[in-house]
Amino acid sequence: MKKDIILVGASGRMGQEIEKIINSETEFRILYRVSSSFDNDAENRKSIQDIDLGGREPMVIDFSTAGIFGSVVNWCRENKVPLVSGTTGLSNEDFVNLENAGKTIPILWSSNMSVGINVLRKLISQLAVIKDFDFQVEDFHHNKKIDAPSGTAITLQNDLINVLDKDLPQVVSVRAGGIFGIHKINAVSNEEHIILEHRAMNRSVFANGAVFAAKWLKDKPAGCYSMMDALQ
Amino acid sequence: MKKDIILVGASGRMGQEIEKIINSETEFRILYRVSSSFDNDAENRKSIQDIDLGGREPMVIDFSTAGIFGSVVNWCRENKVPLVSGTTGLSNEDFVNLENAGKTIPILWSSNMSVGINVLRKLISQLAVIKDFDFQVEDFHHNKKIDAPSGTAITLQNDLINVLDKDLPQVVSVRAGGIFGIHKINAVSNEEHIILEHRAMNRSVFANGAVFAAKWLKDKPAGCYSMMDALQ
Amino acid sequence: MKKDIILVGASGRMGQEIEKIINSETEFRILYRVSSSFDNDAENRKSIQDIDLGGREPMVIDFSTAGIFGSVVNWCRENKVPLVSGTTGLSNEDFVNLENAGKTIPILWSSNMSVGINVLRKLISQLAVIKDFDFQVEDFHHNKKIDAPSGTAITLQNDLINVLDKDLPQVVSVRAGGIFGIHKINAVSNEEHIILEHRAMNRSVFANGAVFAAKWLKDKPAGCYSMMDALQ
Amino acid sequence: MKKDIILVGASGRMGQEIEKIINSETEFRILYRVSSSFDNDAENRKSIQDIDLGGREPMVIDFSTAGIFGSVVNWCRENKVPLVSGTTGLSNEDFVNLENAGKTIPILWSSNMSVGINVLRKLISQLAVIKDFDFQVEDFHHNKKIDAPSGTAITLQNDLINVLDKDLPQVVSVRAGGIFGIHKINAVSNEEHIILEHRAMNRSVFANGAVFAAKWLKDKPAGCYSMMDALQ
Repeated sequence: MKKDIILVGASGRMGQEIEKIINSETEFRILYRVSSSFDNDAENRKSIQDIDLGGREPMVIDFSTAGIFGSVVNWCRENKVPLVSGTTGLSNEDFVNLENAGKTIPILWSSNMSVGINVLRKLISQLAVIKDFDFQVEDFHHNKKIDAPSGTAITLQNDLINVLDKDLPQVVSVRAGGIFGIHKINAVSNEEHIILEHRAMNRSVFANGAVFAAKWLKDKPAGCYSMMDALQ
Repeated sequence: MKKDIILVGASGRMGQEIEKIINSETEFRILYRVSSSFDNDAENRKSIQDIDLGGREPMVIDFSTAGIFGSVVNWCRENKVPLVSGTTGLSNEDFVNLENAGKTIPILWSSNMSVGINVLRKLISQLAVIKDFDFQVEDFHHNKKIDAPSGTAITLQNDLINVLDKDLPQVVSVRAGGIFGIHKINAVSNEEHIILEHRAMNRSVFANGAVFAAKWLKDKPAGCYSMMDALQ
Repeated sequence: MKKDIILVGASGRMGQEIEKIINSETEFRILYRVSSSFDNDAENRKSIQDIDLGGREPMVIDFSTAGIFGSVVNWCRENKVPLVSGTTGLSNEDFVNLENAGKTIPILWSSNMSVGINVLRKLISQLAVIKDFDFQVEDFHHNKKIDAPSGTAITLQNDLINVLDKDLPQVVSVRAGGIFGIHKINAVSNEEHIILEHRAMNRSVFANGAVFAAKWLKDKPAGCYSMMDALQ
Repeated sequence: MKKDIILVGASGRMGQEIEKIINSETEFRILYRVSSSFDNDAENRKSIQDIDLGGREPMVIDFSTAGIFGSVVNWCRENKVPLVSGTTGLSNEDFVNLENAGKTIPILWSSNMSVGINVLRKLISQLAVIKDFDFQVEDFHHNKKIDAPSGTAITLQNDLINVLDKDLPQVVSVRAGGIFGIHKINAVSNEEHIILEHRAMNRSVFANGAVFAAKWLKDKPAGCYSMMDALQ
């Protein structure tokens, strides 16, 4: 039997991409779509609070906005529904809330679900030897993207700060055209310029990662997991 | 007979580079070096006002800072001395002053004296056909550079605004390590990403351009000239 | 009434992309698909010679392979059918054949139908001033692409040779993963490195261009046209 | 007391750069320069065989050509002189010879002595997780460089082949203008494009590395060492 999915942020770019993949999968099916732009009808809900589970045991995949993130987490915790989320722009309070919910339900949150970005994070862990270099993180995304820097860029920046054990200049963000997502890490001395660059070539890279994460998470015990965990 | 040069900003990176080139040239020789870090001695001056020309007819090559730019221009005008300047970070007032001085003396000011940047400016003039694309100018320079964006980036940005006839997002500036100077123009639609990029591979590129400009300017009538004029 | 399209190379990547766009258009409809991998049935043909027009007046859009290009051109000429083609890897003989057919029917052939590549060609026309620089053209494409260098890279290379009036080193080609198409022109002196780069972000860029070209070509008199003509 | 250096390949670009650094050091001094373009005079030799040590105990720093590499190694072994070498384009026979000599004298050979390239080698060791990606190594160097691919590119390529445990396409090499040295590793799937790039911004990066290596090597026991060893 197929596992039911509640897709939050269903009318966004990522939501639509994930729905396409789920529709071509045998393991999952869409139970409800949630978006503030929907009317409440058979398959759609304006808000996750409008949903009555009636005994079903779905999962939530959430690519919505920071503004409703807290209410999604709380609803999942109260209803014991596993949560995969790629929503970015979160506050510290959101992260505390996430961690608390992880005591009750399995949660996988990641600012970027691609293999490549997670490889980049591994590479960053090797850079302590050049901590004297100057570093600069850049992110390029399409002009519809609301948050800047991207959640992924913030993750990479924090990884670098931890490894290099020093402050870094602010991430530089460019929003233009339909760029799927480019992230660059510049490391520069007086004599050398090293660039680690990741380019997403389509949106499927993230949507595929989200569905991959959902498969991995569905039978896990309560806890906060990362994409790194799922990729091991 | 060699033409005398007064080198303003002589203790800076560009000043030292220009002095090297002048010393290997047969056409010019250094008469005075000017820098606030100098003592007044036989060949050095703290300020251009400390110089007594005593009948000589030198040229000024100036790579100093915006703060003293006005006084350099005024001194040149009063003493009828031709001026080549690559000082950046100028105010509107500085440009007005420059233009007035151009009625009395020949002046060539350029934010970037390389051939390549001036080729880039020519390419920009062809971009009106993609005015619907999103544009983003970037500049990367060494961590000793004070002004951001670079004068060159501002020039490229203004060229683009004129050709595209629309506003553009602010120039993005990175300061790291010993980067000589990288400028990029991104033009992005939903389907295509065009990048025009210029990398200076050493400082000589600008210093050579400045000496080239001085040779070109030395016999010109009063007027405000650009590197584009000198390269025709 | 919709204009009938015969799509040659219908089972290839570009063919499928073009069919999607045509199906979402009101101006065109698919009459026949042609591919050597098809059986002859109601809407499909193994070869263009299997088609009996029976009085209809379609156009051909062709993204197939060099091996059958000559027979496609000949069939179009004999049947007075306008032809839009983006097939690459053509021989000199193919180009002569194309030119002859242009005396009878309207033909638009282009190695690359994107706006951006045609802008790049305009920029190339401005580069004579740096003919002393070293030049290197590069192309990057997905690992399914058969010909190397790409037809687009050959076009850019030939444009450069004409403008610079000198020989150039061979185009460098990389085939890897799912890259849609990256073309770079490097111009390098001892002091400067200029890069003009074009990245296609999806295949629609070319398919859109092909359908755009078909609209433009359908009422034109006999002749050989380029994408530059269509974009004026 | 300063350690004597015999500089082989002294009239080449790297040789001159190394001499500049040695002259500004307190620890080393030039005893002899060796180059086929020299006459035998007080400080210069046409060939290393022309040198009579007369009891002195120098080191050799060698940036010459593959053609004379064997004779340099043999001379060092016979005279018990430690050897730092960055000569590239070596044959298998040369490497066997090197290894044998390492039983008698300390030898550090590296195709690239920069910190950054050795960091890149560390990063490569993390890439097994994406062995399904397509890989392509590129190198860009100045138009005076004789060997292609560069020795560094071959080192990176071999590192990748070992880590990924699969064959790779040939390295792509560009020779243009005065590029100091750019190396890129592309890793590409259908959805992601990762680029690890290293740019040398001047020649000092290699010359500094060579002098650093000489300091490290001078008191070591016989053996074959790498730059990785020196950087630990």
